[in-house]
Amino acid sequence: MALIRSVFQDELDSVSQSLVDLTEMVSISMSKATRAMLTRDLKLAEEVIAEDEKIDEYQHEIDNRIIDIIARQQPVASDLRALVTALRMGSDLERMGDLAEHVAKITRLRHPDSAVPVELIQTITAMGEAAEKITIKTGVVIATRDTEMAIQLEKDDDVMDKLHRELIGVLIEPNWPHGIESAIDLTLLGRYYERYADHAVSISRRVYFLVTGKYASL
Amino acid sequence: MALIRSVFQDELDSVSQSLVDLTEMVSISMSKATRAMLTRDLKLAEEVIAEDEKIDEYQHEIDNRIIDIIARQQPVASDLRALVTALRMGSDLERMGDLAEHVAKITRLRHPDSAVPVELIQTITAMGEAAEKITIKTGVVIATRDTEMAIQLEKDDDVMDKLHRELIGVLIEPNWPHGIESAIDLTLLGRYYERYADHAVSISRRVYFLVTGKYASL
Repeated sequence: MALIRSVFQDELDSVSQSLVDLTEMVSISMSKATRAMLTRDLKLAEEVIAEDEKIDEYQHEIDNRIIDIIARQQPVASDLRALVTALRMGSDLERMGDLAEHVAKITRLRHPDSAVPVELIQTITAMGEAAEKITIKTGVVIATRDTEMAIQLEKDDDVMDKLHRELIGVLIEPNWPHGIESAIDLTLLGRYYERYADHAVSISRRVYFLVTGKYASL
Repeated sequence: MALIRSVFQDELDSVSQSLVDLTEMVSISMSKATRAMLTRDLKLAEEVIAEDEKIDEYQHEIDNRIIDIIARQQPVASDLRALVTALRMGSDLERMGDLAEHVAKITRLRHPDSAVPVELIQTITAMGEAAEKITIKTGVVIATRDTEMAIQLEKDDDVMDKLHRELIGVLIEPNWPHGIESAIDLTLLGRYYERYADHAVSISRRVYFLVTGKYASL
């Protein structure tokens, strides 16, 4: 027996799929940005910077599609909420792409030197891994609306916060040997990864609210 | 002769007015945050932190009203775009409120010390003034849809960027005497003011696009 599906439902699903694709693009961008920074790879950093435009364009295209669906289908109640939420998730993802670009720009600014001194390679590597983990889960949450995973994502964000505090802790140890300029770079890098994870959490909270009608309280 | 106005138009105007009110709340919050920081006023900083919740709630209320208008009135074309833009402006303003709160939190963290050493009082004062000027203009742009003023706002943002570079310039002078922790605070403060102004610019660009159908190119 074939299920009868509405055109509207198909359109909603197609928006979700596009958001999953956008999440994938952002994930690749941040992974490349981290790798470029850790390996002082200028070419890879330039690639991330150039590709951010594609992320912006793709988000823009999704936005226009969503507005067009609202105009044509005139959804109400939960369908309208789902579309408005999709608009917001698109903004979060676009901003995550910007933050990956910011990481790449620090790499470019310091090239051929490294922005990451040896005592922080491990922490930054772990922040990159946490970002990757969080983004993959974000894609799954958008695709499946899995509220369990949405809650897990908050815990991954705690890991990111812990790494961020660790980073600042190293910077303020007495006799930090790399000077102020390096500390400024690392302060900003820490902030970029932290904000990146915050946006992922914001997406997972939006999905949680959409599914349950409640705010995630942990 | 009385003009006949639609219920829908009245609702749109009322949303605009609420966004102007929200801009006012945000403006007061950032002004207080700057003053609290420059005068090491813990009580005032606490006030900013407590009041951010009101900004969040007010934005939330505007959001719900907008979604309700879309559901009931089923607007298309430019009316729908205006409402979607209003949703986005609400998010920008809410974020500007968060950034004012972040400034206040640094004041609280360093109290009774000052986060701003004497050689940077002038720069931070100027950043606070630039933020105030930009926010007031943002309110006018939302209320009047004045595209000339929307363009001016971009120039005020250039002033903020210049001040931000000035701040970093002082931090990286040889023999910065206030240590790494202070440099971290000031790096973050600079970033908060810069992002605050970026969100104001983003609002003015949204209004410009709504009125002209074009992106502001300067």
